[in-house]
Order: sequence, then structure tokens, then C-alpha cells
Amino acid sequence: MSDAARRVRLLALDVDGVLTDNAIHIGLVGGLRVEFKRFDIQDGLGHVLLRGLPIQVAWVSARPSDATTLRATELRVSELIQAADGRKIPPMQAMLDRLGISWDEVAFVGDDLADVPVLRRVGLPIAVANAIPEVKALAAHVTTAVGGHGAVREVIEWLLQQRGEYQQAMKRYLAEREVA
Amino acid sequence: MSDAARRVRLLALDVDGVLTDNAIHIGLVGGLRVEFKRFDIQDGLGHVLLRGLPIQVAWVSARPSDATTLRATELRVSELIQAADGRKIPPMQAMLDRLGISWDEVAFVGDDLADVPVLRRVGLPIAVANAIPEVKALAAHVTTAVGGHGAVREVIEWLLQQRGEYQQAMKRYLAEREVA
Amino acid sequence: MSDAARRVRLLALDVDGVLTDNAIHIGLVGGLRVEFKRFDIQDGLGHVLLRGLPIQVAWVSARPSDATTLRATELRVSELIQAADGRKIPPMQAMLDRLGISWDEVAFVGDDLADVPVLRRVGLPIAVANAIPEVKALAAHVTTAVGGHGAVREVIEWLLQQRGEYQQAMKRYLAEREVA
Amino acid sequence: MSDAARRVRLLALDVDGVLTDNAIHIGLVGGLRVEFKRFDIQDGLGHVLLRGLPIQVAWVSARPSDATTLRATELRVSELIQAADGRKIPPMQAMLDRLGISWDEVAFVGDDLADVPVLRRVGLPIAVANAIPEVKALAAHVTTAVGGHGAVREVIEWLLQQRGEYQQAMKRYLAEREVA
Repeated sequence: MSDAARRVRLLALDVDGVLTDNAIHIGLVGGLRVEFKRFDIQDGLGHVLLRGLPIQVAWVSARPSDATTLRATELRVSELIQAADGRKIPPMQAMLDRLGISWDEVAFVGDDLADVPVLRRVGLPIAVANAIPEVKALAAHVTTAVGGHGAVREVIEWLLQQRGEYQQAMKRYLAEREVA
Repeated sequence: MSDAARRVRLLALDVDGVLTDNAIHIGLVGGLRVEFKRFDIQDGLGHVLLRGLPIQVAWVSARPSDATTLRATELRVSELIQAADGRKIPPMQAMLDRLGISWDEVAFVGDDLADVPVLRRVGLPIAVANAIPEVKALAAHVTTAVGGHGAVREVIEWLLQQRGEYQQAMKRYLAEREVA
Repeated sequence: MSDAARRVRLLALDVDGVLTDNAIHIGLVGGLRVEFKRFDIQDGLGHVLLRGLPIQVAWVSARPSDATTLRATELRVSELIQAADGRKIPPMQAMLDRLGISWDEVAFVGDDLADVPVLRRVGLPIAVANAIPEVKALAAHVTTAVGGHGAVREVIEWLLQQRGEYQQAMKRYLAEREVA
Repeated sequence: MSDAARRVRLLALDVDGVLTDNAIHIGLVGGLRVEFKRFDIQDGLGHVLLRGLPIQVAWVSARPSDATTLRATELRVSELIQAADGRKIPPMQAMLDRLGISWDEVAFVGDDLADVPVLRRVGLPIAVANAIPEVKALAAHVTTAVGGHGAVREVIEWLLQQRGEYQQAMKRYLAEREVA
């Protein structure tokens, strides 16, 4: 496991059910469709912990949503894929080609059938606690936390621990927030 | 049970408490009433699994809401009933007449008293885990998941399994999302 | 208990923590403060069950909110008190005087300190499961369900059962929703 | 413990994960980013209980949000820090200097790494039930309730009980809400 973790150069995350609790809140505001999603602040701090490490972050959704774009922008997620046709492989292949990263160097976190083709390819497949059985069966690691309630934070801490980099990342985070 | 499941040509779903967690979020925005509902992404993927099978989907609510209309449109639900007078039978009868489907060929999922007249008529009455006792007493099947948290996905998978069509539906879904 | 229940002519409900889960969702929309509250659809159907019975319904909040007004209007709640100064007794006294109802004929459902002065006066004091100990200590009945998740529906069914009117109310509801 | 509690002149609260459930709800409304947060009404009443006591309240967030500003204003929180750079110590030091309060006279409630530098300095460090292990390890007291679901109310009642002031605060609250 720790070998696969040390090879990781890209952490790719499904959005609905992984970064969220699989809920969308929909309503009509001023005649226009509005969609809210619930994101977790502790997951956000996990993204900050990764900064400075040689691990890029990608969010890969099969369902475009302005809410996803807004949160990815706030967390400075450099790679954001929202595949309107529900097919994740072609845009991920293009991204990996562009970044010069192989599937074997990718950790992917998923929860549902749309993630199965990806989980079959990556070097480190991970499932959240709320994933369907078909996804968990493919995973090398399953989280304790559920999506939208700290699952991504747990994955990031676990990944850093497997690589032996957690203490260092945490100390760097704290040092930056102490008085100069 | 599997005989009733094989006869099903229409899967009809109550909305509040079945496709949602029975909550509505209400507020005043710009002087106008706005209502948000929480829908589940895994329920949505369940709707996609049904495409290509000879089972139509209807949503049948006794309470009109723009939020319901928006989500039904997104999931391409062809039949949407929102009865402002709280009576579900007359519009369902009209729909069945138009589609040439009998009550015996309908599976209906409900949670509350407004669903009782429907559940008494359909061939396959189903209750969600959060249904009131009067509804569960009428049901041939009760889900493990609660409304808005995967109950509809569970019903769809269960229905397909009863009909011996789950593996095929899942494989078709995955094949469409693999690289061509 | 059933004697107190039979005397009830007014069912008065605190709002936050009783009709809701004690949450408010706040945000800035177009430069204006917007507040959403989560209401429960099964609680709403409980209000419909009471129609036709000689029991009036009042909502009594110590915190004004447009969200409360919107939901009360939708459920045709005839008496709505939102006391900006946090004092519930004076406006309730005025309401009771106007309606010709005595404190002894009131059932009140509360959860927090602001409800204590009311619960000390009414004939049938009720606490929700999430009420603070001081409120539960005053209550003749404590619900199993928590606020915003069916506590009010439970109170209404319990009250009707204590009065021996539940079966009749349910049958009338169902008869009105059957085909004529 | 009660000695530390008696010295407290400022109760400082982290916002996300302490006053909220660590969730933010994000969406695009009319082309603009909107963020909703969930605040707890029982926490709000806790703030009211503190009025009249010689304990000031500060909210200290490492992430600016209009939702936080709106709720702090409503609860008359006199000191509100929202540090855009994620560093809480410099603005807290400035606040304490201005108020003439020392770190030893501060109780602080936190949940995540950003709170660690503060918890190391204050006289009474407190963690919510959902805090990460590193935060709980620094805390003199850990709440039973989780953030956004009464953790702050619990802290306020616990603090007043440690100081022997709870009964008095509750009686004053009730006296003000009784008929004059």
C-alpha cells in the first residue's frame, strides 16, 4: 500500500458523494434554476495541507455544476473536469497526457458506478464509506468517514501518513500560522 | 414478489419523503418565496440505469413545487404529476389510461397518508424506511434506506434484481462510459 | 393526561427546535440577508389532519423570520406570533383573550428556555425530544421524534389518540383523497 | 478547572465546525457566488445568557464569510475576526491589547489545525466533540455536542456552572421574559 502511495503524483477526487454528501439542493430563484452543494471545511484544510508537496489535485465529476466550480476555485484546485456526457476516462486521459502523469501514479476516490472505469485504471483506487459495493470491491482502501463529512480530509491524511509526510506537512502548516 | 416485479411497466414515485428527506427549505429572496429541496445523486444514477428498459418512470406528488419540476426535468422523468388538491388518484388514472398501463402493472413508492389510496391499487406497493405504519402495512416491500438518502436507488436495484435485469443494466451503463 | 387532552382548544407550537431542527441557514444574496429554515412535510400533513376538528393552531416564536411566515401561510395557520422582544406571554395572553380560550385549554410544545414561562401556564405542556432538561421537567409529555423531523406530527397524532379522534381524522383525510 | 473558568473575561469561538457543522452550502445565484451557513438557535440563546455577565464574546475565523458576519451581527457579538490569511494570532493579539485582556483570561473553542496556535496560548482551551485529535490533545475540556448542534450552548452553560453563575443567569433570563 505504501509503495502505491509513494508513487502518487495526482490525487483525483470524484465530487458528488466524495466531496459532498451526495445531496444537491435545488430551487427556482428569480425564474432561474439554482443549485447548492454542501462542502466540508475540514476537507478544505486537507487541500491546504497538500500545498508544497509534489502531489497535484484534480476534481473529476460526471455532472457539471456551478457549485463545484466555485468551491474548486476557492481551494485552488488546478485541474477540474466536469464531463457533461458522464464519461470520465477521455478527459482524464487528456489531462494525464498533458501533465505527463501515468494512471499508475494516480490515486482516485470514488463512490458510485460512474467511478468504476477510473478505479480500474489507477494505481491507488480508494472508496468512501458510503460507496456502493461495486466500488468498494475495486478499492485498495476504504475510508471511515462518509463523503461531505471529512472523507477527503481522511484520505489526504492517510495518504500523507503512508508516504511518511504527515508530520512534516502539519508542522509546516502550523509554522506558517504562528507569529513571525 | 418477482412475478409482481416482472409485470411492472411503470415505476411511480412519491416525491417528498421518498426522493427527498421530507424537508423543504423555505426563505424570502428578493421579496419572493423560494423553496429548496434536497435530492440524492445516487437516486439520479438509478434513473439512468432504467433507461433502455421497458419501465417508464413517473413522479407523483400531492404538493406542487418548482424544485420538483427542475429535478424531474434534469432526470428526464417523462411523467410528472403535482396535484394541487392533494388527490393523486384522478391524475394517475388519466396517466395510466393515456399510457395503456393498468394499476396491476404499476410499482409505487410512498411514505405518508397521501399515498395510501395509490398503494391500495397498484400491483407492487413499496414503502420507504421512514414511512408511517399505515403505509408500511400496505407495502409488499420496505426499503432499508430512507427517503432522500438512496431509497429510490435501492428500489430500482431491487426491482431490477427481482426481474433478473440488474447485472445487464449495470454492464450496459459501464460499457457506455468506457472508452470507445 | 387524556382529560387534559380533551380540554385542548388550541395547539400552540414554538417554531425553532419544534417545527425546525433549530437550524437557520443564513447567507447574503444580492446584498441582502436571506434566511432559510427547514420544515418537515409530515408535520405539514399533521396540520391538515387537524382541520375540521375544534382545535385551533398557533405558532409562537420569540424570533421573527420571513421563513416562518411563509410556511405558516402555506399551512393556513390562523394564529402566528413572532415576538421581537423574546417575550411570549403578553402576545399569547392577548390572543387567548381575543379567542375566548383559557390557558388551561392550551397545549404548548417547546424546546428551550424561552418556552418556560408558557409551559408553566398551559393545561398541557409538551416537550420535544431535543428540549433542554428545564423544559422536559415541566412537560406532561415528551416526544420521541426531534424537532423538524416529525415531532409536531407525532404530537398531533398523540393528541388525537388521547382524545379518541385519530381514527376518525385519518379516515376523513383518506376519504377526501379517494375518487369521488 | 473552575479556577481557569473564573478567570475568563473573554470567550472566543472558532466559527466553522464550532458554531457550524463545518459545512458551507455554495451556489451561483444571479451570476454571483452565494454561501449559506447553518447556525444553531440554541447556541444563539446561549449568547443571550451571557449578556449582563463580565464575559465578552469574540468570534475568530480563519475564513471570511458574509454568512458569519450576518449571524454575528444578529447576536450582537462585539468582536469579530475573520483572518483572510488564515493566521489567527496577530488579530487576536491586537484585540486582546485593545481590550486589556491577557491570553490567560481567554477561553477558546476550536476544532481544527488552524486553532492550534490559539489553543496553545489561552488559559482555558476547549475542543468540540468533532475536533481533530491534535486539537483535543490540547484541550482542558471537550464538549459532548458537535459543532452547529449545540456545542457552543453546552460550552456556555458549562462555563457558567464552573463559575457558579448558571442558576443566576437562567433566572435573570426567565425573569425578563415573564409578564412585568
